[in-house]
Amino acid sequence: MSDTSSLDALIQALRRLPGVGIKSAQRMAFHMLQHDREGAEMLSRALHEASNSIRHCERCHTFTEAAICEVCSDPGRDMSRLCVVETPADQSAMERTGAFKGLYFVLMGRLSPLDGVGPRDIGVKKLIERATDGMVQEVILATSFTAEGEATAYAIGEALRPRGIQVTRLARGVPVGSELEFVDLGTIAHALADRR
Amino acid sequence: MSDTSSLDALIQALRRLPGVGIKSAQRMAFHMLQHDREGAEMLSRALHEASNSIRHCERCHTFTEAAICEVCSDPGRDMSRLCVVETPADQSAMERTGAFKGLYFVLMGRLSPLDGVGPRDIGVKKLIERATDGMVQEVILATSFTAEGEATAYAIGEALRPRGIQVTRLARGVPVGSELEFVDLGTIAHALADRR
Ligand SMILES: [Zn+2]
Ligand SMILES: [Zn+2]
Repeated sequence: MSDTSSLDALIQALRRLPGVGIKSAQRMAFHMLQHDREGAEMLSRALHEASNSIRHCERCHTFTEAAICEVCSDPGRDMSRLCVVETPADQSAMERTGAFKGLYFVLMGRLSPLDGVGPRDIGVKKLIERATDGMVQEVILATSFTAEGEATAYAIGEALRPRGIQVTRLARGVPVGSELEFVDLGTIAHALADRR
Repeated sequence: MSDTSSLDALIQALRRLPGVGIKSAQRMAFHMLQHDREGAEMLSRALHEASNSIRHCERCHTFTEAAICEVCSDPGRDMSRLCVVETPADQSAMERTGAFKGLYFVLMGRLSPLDGVGPRDIGVKKLIERATDGMVQEVILATSFTAEGEATAYAIGEALRPRGIQVTRLARGVPVGSELEFVDLGTIAHALADRR
């Protein structure tokens, strides 16, 4: 119906969001127009502002509004340790543990040959430059424990070790609070192999 | 992190969308900023435009950019039949069947006492006015075949029948193309009761 072209345009635009199909897009458009126009305007402004102000930190590649992000600018961090994560959300999880005081490099992805994501797309060259600044002594690989995350960790390790940098990987193991009975067998086998 | 306040604002705004929790909102924000800034700008504009141009048709209450929607303005429609649906998506489904040539009334919801949605919220008074315009002879209730949709159909039927309007309901039955073996028993029982 041509008298609802702005509604049709909204439904199409919502489908650009990951995981949103035609049914969800219709439901979202309906909800926002019927019950939450304030939310629609808020989201409209937030998208425009983030899209125009968010860029990548020159040192760690994470999202930031400044040239260098707050973590990289913090003189209290341990500059000898560099933790490699896939996404800002992973970095955030690591920060919330309070257990890491070093710096980060955020890949903004992981190797995925099937999807055409190669070493260049995740900034491996930039990571090598960053890790060979003379201050970094240990690179801790905190990519996912999935096939792609493991492949990413392997490729980075292969690139860094010949340059004399100590490369470590997060331990695999049984999640804290889990009963062994309910943990998958692969995890138990890894926990056994990595036992301390 | 204060240097990512526009990212935080975007994540919070995405949570206003129905069915989007904190994890989905983070994933959506990440995806749009990392891979699809054009989509972010497109969605920003679409939200603003739809929010400012979409209103309700004065006759049938559906979404439209004009005072009276295209269906209600079409002189070729059968003005003696009025089909009551819950949402514009339901109206759309009905239109796609090509089996109905009458007019619509879109409730923009359904009775849901537990959520505080009463007859006033779904415009029952407006529907009564619409159905008693002297042209409408039959009101076809095409609300959902759920507890709330049935309650809505019942309430509307009770309000219209004393006013001398013929009120009918879509038939319940076995979906076309289904094998009986895989149809739920309640549906089979209804199909038996409503047999022709
Ligand atoms: Zn940084
Ligand atoms: Zn209308």
